Amino acid sequence: MTDSWANTRVGEVDLHLDPGGSGLRAGLMDALREAVRGGRLAPGTRLPSSRTLAADLGIARNTVATAYAELVAEGWLTARQGSGTRVAARAAPRRAAAVSATAPDPRGRPSYSLLPGTPDLASFPRQEWSRAARRALTAAPNDAFGYGYGEARGRIELRTALAGYLARARGVHASPERIVVCAGFVHGLALLGKVLRARRVREVAVDAYGLPAHRALLAEAGLRTPALALDARGTRTDELAGPGGTGRSGGAGAVLLTPAHQFPLGGALHPERRAAAVDWARATDGLVLEDDYDGEFRFDRQPVGALQGLDPERVVYLGTASKSLAPGLRLAWMVLPERLVGEVAAAKGEVDRVPGTPDQLTLAEFIASGAYDRQVRAMRGRYRRRRDQLAAALADAAPGIRVTGIAAGLHAVVQLPPGTERPTLAAARDQGLALEGLSCFRHPSAPPGPDALVVGYGTPSDSAWAGALEALRRVLPA
Amino acid sequence: MTDSWANTRVGEVDLHLDPGGSGLRAGLMDALREAVRGGRLAPGTRLPSSRTLAADLGIARNTVATAYAELVAEGWLTARQGSGTRVAARAAPRRAAAVSATAPDPRGRPSYSLLPGTPDLASFPRQEWSRAARRALTAAPNDAFGYGYGEARGRIELRTALAGYLARARGVHASPERIVVCAGFVHGLALLGKVLRARRVREVAVDAYGLPAHRALLAEAGLRTPALALDARGTRTDELAGPGGTGRSGGAGAVLLTPAHQFPLGGALHPERRAAAVDWARATDGLVLEDDYDGEFRFDRQPVGALQGLDPERVVYLGTASKSLAPGLRLAWMVLPERLVGEVAAAKGEVDRVPGTPDQLTLAEFIASGAYDRQVRAMRGRYRRRRDQLAAALADAAPGIRVTGIAAGLHAVVQLPPGTERPTLAAARDQGLALEGLSCFRHPSAPPGPDALVVGYGTPSDSAWAGALEALRRVLPA
Repeated sequence: MTDSWANTRVGEVDLHLDPGGSGLRAGLMDALREAVRGGRLAPGTRLPSSRTLAADLGIARNTVATAYAELVAEGWLTARQGSGTRVAARAAPRRAAAVSATAPDPRGRPSYSLLPGTPDLASFPRQEWSRAARRALTAAPNDAFGYGYGEARGRIELRTALAGYLARARGVHASPERIVVCAGFVHGLALLGKVLRARRVREVAVDAYGLPAHRALLAEAGLRTPALALDARGTRTDELAGPGGTGRSGGAGAVLLTPAHQFPLGGALHPERRAAAVDWARATDGLVLEDDYDGEFRFDRQPVGALQGLDPERVVYLGTASKSLAPGLRLAWMVLPERLVGEVAAAKGEVDRVPGTPDQLTLAEFIASGAYDRQVRAMRGRYRRRRDQLAAALADAAPGIRVTGIAAGLHAVVQLPPGTERPTLAAARDQGLALEGLSCFRHPSAPPGPDALVVGYGTPSDSAWAGALEALRRVLPA
Repeated sequence: MTDSWANTRVGEVDLHLDPGGSGLRAGLMDALREAVRGGRLAPGTRLPSSRTLAADLGIARNTVATAYAELVAEGWLTARQGSGTRVAARAAPRRAAAVSATAPDPRGRPSYSLLPGTPDLASFPRQEWSRAARRALTAAPNDAFGYGYGEARGRIELRTALAGYLARARGVHASPERIVVCAGFVHGLALLGKVLRARRVREVAVDAYGLPAHRALLAEAGLRTPALALDARGTRTDELAGPGGTGRSGGAGAVLLTPAHQFPLGGALHPERRAAAVDWARATDGLVLEDDYDGEFRFDRQPVGALQGLDPERVVYLGTASKSLAPGLRLAWMVLPERLVGEVAAAKGEVDRVPGTPDQLTLAEFIASGAYDRQVRAMRGRYRRRRDQLAAALADAAPGIRVTGIAAGLHAVVQLPPGTERPTLAAARDQGLALEGLSCFRHPSAPPGPDALVVGYGTPSDSAWAGALEALRRVLPA
């Protein structure tokens, strides 16, 4: 074991890591962010490969690769097949999302975030949640506080509440027996990756636009993630190969989709494509992984039901409390084909027996008491108003700019004139507005797409919303 | 993918698994338990190797190995190096611990549990916990409900509260920066196993008596677990090899100890051995993993301070709320040498960002408000009374039988006359009393030890305690 400091040079920059400090990966990320922020690593600079940098620093390659992937997700770096990892043209500090939305930055300007992916944290129903916790803890049997041997799927109270809710609200074919509670969507996806890999699956097809972190997670499980193109009807399911098919993703054993609300583009998967995805799974013994991250938040009509209802034995439904309540709960759930329940529970096993009982029981009570429905309804109204205000503000400020994505969820896509995404993001950075461009969600193998912003209108608190909108108007291309 | 039923024969028994049922591993465990319970698999029967059985059933070897390991831990099977896995001479259903302690079993007799490892779940302070949850949620900043990027170590509120408590109550050299919150001790041990293995450590020495599940966890991380003998002064630290040493565990890069209260034997590590363990770690660049599972519960005098205080850069301190509050919370913590913090946090990473914020914040408030101290004090008094009652009852019923283990914790060792451990456990099973023998904690490579029971006097609720004691008296050898 060594605790000496690690040093190396990247371009003209001395990277200096204190392994005893905030952690190797965190330290590397901090050092790279600092170098980009201070201009020592100029936009476009090509970074050494993760292998090279890891060898130079004497640390695990995976640490470097993960740091790179997270910095790509945060917008500091970009990764393109064939041209390696480079410093992005701008550096949107995703961390700003966690900062109080009206805290002035060191230069005295307000700092706003319109990054997608986080609900309005100020709206978390603290009182209702505390009350549900009290009721749940009072009613719990003693053994709820035990180790829960043989309960890798999660508490029966929560699985029962979820089965009822999901059947009613999302059209999921659910029963408590086929539900596995997990600590956030990524935990569920990691478990599925493990199980798929153990079943000798080598590829999980993904959309050409999606979260880099999800692709990275599947890659960590040893799975390739070929990209499927997207068009006006959503995912080009015809690119999934049937038996003897000629699609690009000939070997995929599963496909990861966001059928209710494509992330980030915002469309719903066309009914024909929904059917085609299930047909493909049936014909190839494949699996559809349905990421229903914000399916409750449809504004114009009843939410479109879960794809899983079409064939519960071919679709894994994944839901989460991260958008409907708060990511900090680390509460998500999978509804599994019967034949997979045992394997997923075994993969979860004894070490992973999370989340803790109080939070599980509280969510069960929160759902059963109707508080979950009330919260979803209230937030739906709030997010709809924000979306309308966003559209109105943009129509007023920049009549040539279109807002797309169906009337759903917590984010919208703001289409920009060609060539203006980067300058807009640079202007936002200068204004203290955390903003994300569409290009950072593009699959490395996908062709370049349109210039656009992915605007998370759910992110600001109510008090910060007007300021965030105004900041956005200021940075849009004239 | 297949969902056909799996069948094979073990000895004279047809094993029949429904992969669509309660899960492959659970199904296999059920089938084996049923076969043992029904007498179709007789005591002493040698089971096929996990490789053979996995091949016969067409399932993953790991599934079989894990099922075997859990059944060994539950007492249905035994594993001895050189003689494989066999059906135990008796079958103590550990699951009984989760069953209401006074529920009659199907044959109309009361069912009690004196299995070690679980606190009195009926004493979980539901009201105090609910109140702490309300206060914590009210006071929390909005970003507490967010994703917590960069917070793999856990919420700062909890790490701060723990640092203060551990320094005060356990003499731990703690600061929030070197604390990592995890979802139970096993989660922490799994993370450490991963980090040690990445550092090319190949062996973690363990006590000759300890929890099979902990050895299995280290083995899963690719680490060998050589055994250290125990004597009246605790772990024979001289068996750890120094530089040029001749100890049995020449290659160990770390040692897992329970210095405050050896599990299951119950002794405290002698001061000379404490010093020797730290000296060994310094001389060999090794690491001591200090499992302080019930260090607060010392009855006769002030708890012995944590070993970690001797050298915070050579000892990883592991604590848990599983004994002091409840295992269902899945809340535990590590205090790490500075140089390991980054690696452990990176191993925890983004997927493992558990436990959930409400439970973390609630424990922080529970500690900061003094409720944790009050609960520990109340339970210490209760467990001490139970221990005294146990000793008195046994002195009365079987004057020749000694109760050993220092005056601490939630379990005691009841020494039995040679050759009587198995018959006693068989009698307990017949009486509906879940009971554990000492031999099931013995390391496979350790020599046979004395006959004894490991009695978890913390396990029954107050209302079940007298009945459990009476049941124990009935099954003791005359």
